[in-house]
Parts: sequence; C-alpha cells; structure tokens
Amino acid sequence: MAWNTEETRRRLKEAATDEFAAHGLHGTTMDRIAARAGINKERLYNYFGGKQQLFAIVLSDELAKAAAAVPITSLREEDIGEYAGRVFDYHAAHPQLLRLLHWEALTYGHQEIPDEQSRTAYYRAKVEAVASAQRDGLVAGQPDAAHLLFLVLSMSLWWFAVPQVASMVTGSDPDNPAERARRRAATVTAARRLAHTSDRQWNPRIQ
Amino acid sequence: MAWNTEETRRRLKEAATDEFAAHGLHGTTMDRIAARAGINKERLYNYFGGKQQLFAIVLSDELAKAAAAVPITSLREEDIGEYAGRVFDYHAAHPQLLRLLHWEALTYGHQEIPDEQSRTAYYRAKVEAVASAQRDGLVAGQPDAAHLLFLVLSMSLWWFAVPQVASMVTGSDPDNPAERARRRAATVTAARRLAHTSDRQWNPRIQ
Repeated sequence: MAWNTEETRRRLKEAATDEFAAHGLHGTTMDRIAARAGINKERLYNYFGGKQQLFAIVLSDELAKAAAAVPITSLREEDIGEYAGRVFDYHAAHPQLLRLLHWEALTYGHQEIPDEQSRTAYYRAKVEAVASAQRDGLVAGQPDAAHLLFLVLSMSLWWFAVPQVASMVTGSDPDNPAERARRRAATVTAARRLAHTSDRQWNPRIQ
Repeated sequence: MAWNTEETRRRLKEAATDEFAAHGLHGTTMDRIAARAGINKERLYNYFGGKQQLFAIVLSDELAKAAAAVPITSLREEDIGEYAGRVFDYHAAHPQLLRLLHWEALTYGHQEIPDEQSRTAYYRAKVEAVASAQRDGLVAGQPDAAHLLFLVLSMSLWWFAVPQVASMVTGSDPDNPAERARRRAATVTAARRLAHTSDRQWNPRIQ
C-alpha cells in the first residue's frame, strides 16, 4: 500500500506539472489534473491541499531537480562558462521549469513567493560558491557574487524565456542543431568574459 | 469626427494593453476590454478584428514605442553598457512590455509570431548597429552581433522577467532604490565586459 500511495502521488504530481506548465495557475483546474492522472480528485486534495499549494510543490520539486542536476559546487574544477553551458543544456532538455517560473512571475507579485525559504537557501548556496571563487581569484570581484550569478543565469535562460524574440534576433530556429550550438557557445563565451576568464585558458590557481 | 475615432481607438488600445498585460491572451475577453474602455464592444471588433489580432497590434505598438525610446543607432557616441542601462531603465518604467512578451512566449509556439515581419526588421536594425561597431573595432568580434545583442538584452531584462528569483538571489527587493541601482550598475558593467570594453575607459577610435 505504501508503494501504491507513492505511485499515486508521483502520477498526480506529474499531471500537475504538465498542466501548470501548459496553462499556468489560473488556467489549470484540479479537475483537469485529476483527469489527466486518471485518479480521483479527492485524493488530489487529500495529498496536496489546494491548487496554490500544489503549484508551490510542483515548482519547488522542479527547482530541486534542477539544483541536483546542475550543481555549482565546482568552480575550482570547472569554469563559470561551463556552468552556464550546463544550465543552458538543462533548460533545453526541461522546458517546463522556465514556463513554471514565468507563470509564477505573471501570477504572483514579488512579495509573495511560493516556498520562499527553501528556494532562497538553494540560491544562497550558489551565490556562496561564486563568492568563494571570487575570494580565490578565480572570478572577477565585481559585480558582487549575487548579481554576477544572476547575470550569468540570465544569459543561459533568456533563450528559452522568449523563443520568438530569439528567433527574430538570430534569424534562426532553435530546432536547428547548429543554431542551438551557436547559442550555447555564445553563452559560454559570454559567461567566461563576464567572469573575466575569457582571455586566458581557464586555469585555476588553486586545486 | 476624425479626432473622435482616433481617441476611441487610443482608449480601446490602452484598455487592451492593460488587460492583456495583466491576464494574457487567454485570460482576457473582448467584453472586459470594451468595458474597461467604456466603449461599445462592436466598435472594438470593427476597429481591431478579433482578440488575436488585437493582441498582435498591442504587442507591436509597445515594441515600437520601446524601439523609439531606446534607439541603438549610437554605438559610436555611447558604449554598449550605456545602451544596456537604458534598456534596463525603460523596462523598469514600462513593466507591461515584458509581461506581454512572456504571455506571448507562454501562449504561442515559436513557429507562430504575431506581426513577425516588422518586428524582425526592428531587431535586424539593432543587430546591424552592433555588427557595424564590431567592424569598427568598438565591440569584440565574437560572439557574432546577433548573439551578442541577445545576450546583452538578456542581462538588461531578466531582472524584470523573474522578479521573485531576482529577490531570492540578491536578498534585496527591487523597490529598494539602492538595489535597483546595484542591478543597473551590474548590468552596465557586465555588458561592457561582454563587449570587451570593460577594462578601459570607453573611448571610441572613430568619431
């Protein structure tokens, strides 16, 4: 029975992730999520509470998966350009996460942040990794770690945030593998240059 | 009567811009737009056709306003960092445009772009301005002009695209003027560094 419960929760969350990513918080109904999962709506409410809570759980889970898949514990072993490239790759393969973040941005004011505490902790760990690399001289000291990290992420993510604009600016479609590679390479180069490691081979002073 | 028509169109477009920015294409009704403008719904349909056409007109108008307010004809007179700062300022003052672009990204596939032709021309002019500065040696030759422009825009705009994430990463609220100034300064610095003009005073070789 424990397996059954776990499996039911998994199926409901998967259906909720698909529905929220496609239609947002307001465009999604608990009925549709339950129907998509093929599971009774009462169990959906029992397991996850209301729609807002479920949206917060889905977003938080997707962020946790991304954090696990693209760690930034490693600015001594790889440069920030490679980190930017891995973030790019993750979002290319997982378009739902950015859609969820944009639905959040369009739906919530910046004062109300679902699951703020654990998400803030996740970002602070990344900021600290950059700050540590700055103290070791591996990354330029300005902008400060938080703003520098945010700018690196912006370059990795904006391609997926406004795909129509990206196509108009570059004149190329993201489904074209050569264009995908150009976007990734530009992002890696730009992140290195931003961190001031562009003009030399990345070569950490500290192992 | 000509003035009356013009004024009616203006009021309808203003109401449509507010409604679409707040609720997106699917979350907005022609009824609500007409009611917000205090004008008969039939005139709304007569002037603008259907809801999809109206969304395209609103987005196109807002982009045209932005293009007029933040020209990039001037990479001989100012550096790309100042351009990035002006883009940042424009979007800080006009939050509706980015909301419209995100609704577009969430609503349309990347194959269907409202008003694609005139928007592409607008972006190509900006790309050409960067390419020209590259030929004059004012901007680094790599990444190519289109990808470099897109990356500079990403750094100016991501702050407003995911305000919740920006607050969590920086630990500061965008309503705080000091934080607003830090974000702008970081963006200007980063754009200069990306264009390789960061480590010297910006000083064009060609007047």
